[in-house]
Amino acid sequence: MKPKNAFYAQSGGVTAVINASAAGVIETARKYKNRIGKIYAGRDGIIGALTEDLIDTSKEPASAIARLKSTPGGAFGSCRYKLKGLEESRAQYERLIDVFRAHDIGYFFYNGGNDSADTTLKLSEVGEKLGYPLVCVGIPKTVDNDLAVTDTCPGFGSVAKYVATSIREAGFDVASMARTSTRIFVMEVMGRHAGWITAACGLAAERDGDAPQVLLFPEIELDEERFIARVKAIVERDGWCAICVSEGLRTKDGKFVSETGLKDAFGHSQLGGAGEIIAKLVQSRLGHKYHWALADYLQRAARHIASKVDFEQSYRVGVEAVKLAIAGRNAVMPVIERVSNKPYKWRIGVANLADVANKEKMMPRDFITADGFHITQKCRTYLSPLIQGETPPPFRNGLPDYVKLKNTLAPKKLKPFKV
Amino acid sequence: MKPKNAFYAQSGGVTAVINASAAGVIETARKYKNRIGKIYAGRDGIIGALTEDLIDTSKEPASAIARLKSTPGGAFGSCRYKLKGLEESRAQYERLIDVFRAHDIGYFFYNGGNDSADTTLKLSEVGEKLGYPLVCVGIPKTVDNDLAVTDTCPGFGSVAKYVATSIREAGFDVASMARTSTRIFVMEVMGRHAGWITAACGLAAERDGDAPQVLLFPEIELDEERFIARVKAIVERDGWCAICVSEGLRTKDGKFVSETGLKDAFGHSQLGGAGEIIAKLVQSRLGHKYHWALADYLQRAARHIASKVDFEQSYRVGVEAVKLAIAGRNAVMPVIERVSNKPYKWRIGVANLADVANKEKMMPRDFITADGFHITQKCRTYLSPLIQGETPPPFRNGLPDYVKLKNTLAPKKLKPFKV
Repeated sequence: MKPKNAFYAQSGGVTAVINASAAGVIETARKYKNRIGKIYAGRDGIIGALTEDLIDTSKEPASAIARLKSTPGGAFGSCRYKLKGLEESRAQYERLIDVFRAHDIGYFFYNGGNDSADTTLKLSEVGEKLGYPLVCVGIPKTVDNDLAVTDTCPGFGSVAKYVATSIREAGFDVASMARTSTRIFVMEVMGRHAGWITAACGLAAERDGDAPQVLLFPEIELDEERFIARVKAIVERDGWCAICVSEGLRTKDGKFVSETGLKDAFGHSQLGGAGEIIAKLVQSRLGHKYHWALADYLQRAARHIASKVDFEQSYRVGVEAVKLAIAGRNAVMPVIERVSNKPYKWRIGVANLADVANKEKMMPRDFITADGFHITQKCRTYLSPLIQGETPPPFRNGLPDYVKLKNTLAPKKLKPFKV
Repeated sequence: MKPKNAFYAQSGGVTAVINASAAGVIETARKYKNRIGKIYAGRDGIIGALTEDLIDTSKEPASAIARLKSTPGGAFGSCRYKLKGLEESRAQYERLIDVFRAHDIGYFFYNGGNDSADTTLKLSEVGEKLGYPLVCVGIPKTVDNDLAVTDTCPGFGSVAKYVATSIREAGFDVASMARTSTRIFVMEVMGRHAGWITAACGLAAERDGDAPQVLLFPEIELDEERFIARVKAIVERDGWCAICVSEGLRTKDGKFVSETGLKDAFGHSQLGGAGEIIAKLVQSRLGHKYHWALADYLQRAARHIASKVDFEQSYRVGVEAVKLAIAGRNAVMPVIERVSNKPYKWRIGVANLADVANKEKMMPRDFITADGFHITQKCRTYLSPLIQGETPPPFRNGLPDYVKLKNTLAPKKLKPFKV
């Protein structure tokens, strides 16, 4: 039997280690040449499949693929493009099958979050309905750490390590300046609905007086009076206060503290500015000089300070996705299972996409202290293993030496399709 | 002759490597026990001398002092507190001499920028006038890289490495997302009047299509039409555009693009928000979705990605300051002299504080391209050596393991003094 080709695409917000998953897929598929032919990657994610912009990864030498492991961002391009239900988006699903048929693609790997798991699941159903055999495997990825079933999400551990490192460092700075200058430092972090990244900041605080002293979670509505009282008490104790705030912080009436009014392609509100609002609130109430930082994309692109555990898990889910595909497992996703905390041990499990699609894993309430301003020991026990180990990229001329692939497109065989 | 004690203080904004200078001072002074007795550090900078809050560094073991080399911020506290002219601030200068006399301090080391060099110079004059022999030596430090005489300023190279790394990483992220989402990424960096840090961002762009494609310097007044035309052309070419903007960017009428209205203790306006304003300007004119980051203190506290060259120079100026003091050199400062670019070689020189005090070294116009939007090869040749090499801190539990000193105060001998 002639081996079928494979298609791989990156979806949604990229991470410091999503390319490690790509490397895991490509390097593993190349080992099974009797089962998998070419590996095509979608240029700009699933859109590349719709427009038949298929990157022929066989044009890339093994050395370039290996360098993906230490390169942030999405090497083939990603996209925010949500396929809806089978009825609404029937034309798109059928187009995907047409393109896959034209290029003899029998394996579909989709590297993304819960929306992507949903797309992967639906595509597997369409393939069956249209009589086109397609093995569809999801590969988990999201800095938000909000995927169901998996113990953690590849991409999250590296953001966690970045934000905890950053707030620790900024804390040392602010502590130095507090006598005559800045007393309040606010860092705004990502995590729209779930406070996993905000919680990760808390890892930097191991003892009283360590930054960050206060965390503002999206799960805990802002109680202005209690918050100000807490900051006041901490400035009295430490002379300064470092605060990490989620972009998704809400007020008591459930509205986002900050909302630009823009919506992204998935219909989510695009948020920003909670950090500045909180900093100005403290200044207006307590009179302290503030500084604030908005890490934004820096946090999810910071390959230079990636977590080794996260990197290894990201690579591994790519490897295991290929093995599942070769075994004919359809509509599944490799996930991380935690075996033990001390020492931290993990293994790969297999989730059905139906159990992952469109679900959002919220942070348990008992990961947040009763007062709502910090993380509990239970949360630390969960988070701490995920940021362990360093795996710095190679440096050239003093800067991380990241790879840009050639991204050669395969010749098109079909008529254009408008996305 | 009984050895005199020494006083060391950190001044102004702290850096990722100012503690390396402190370690250089303390470790070197400890080697000359026949010449230097105790090394006192000012708690919260020069204020600690005024209030007689003298940290007795002899209480710290050698291992703790060694760990200063990999700890950001100011380990003894810093301050923004400017001593004015001898007439205006006579009481303060005389108090300093009183405190030094009471604690048998014969060496004064002041680790800061041009304001601090001025204070150090004036104090050396006061000592002479009051018949109290005091050897005053400045130690250069500023992320702004704007000190006169020295080829570069300890602290700058590490910020330079951080901002160039960060915008490179963010560029890989934005490039991935541009098809359907973010096309404009703006990172705001420090550097109030001189564009050294903005220029350093430019090191990340080695070829067309690399981030950042546009730099907005404080030296070049913003020409909105030309700027928008440039961004438009780059988005047409690359599909996206990364912009680094100085906090001190000015409009054509010479006003800061953003100004909060606050002033710091030196009378400087406190700036912030230029990044957001630029991002929103591009969105309103070209309609592209944007993200923006405000690195703020993260950039100057990022010891985890410090430049090895900068670290070594920072340590060395501490070492050499002590040697100058022992040699009886008064009112001087060790500086960095560049010997060659390829290979990069540097040595220590000696500047008179009178040539450094209150001067500001601006960036040469020929370091900026004629169009005002990027750096020239000449600028790269100057900047590139300063970010070479990595010197990561030790990690513990997945995070940089920074030291907090005991900071034991010496018993007071004088009456209180109000600062």
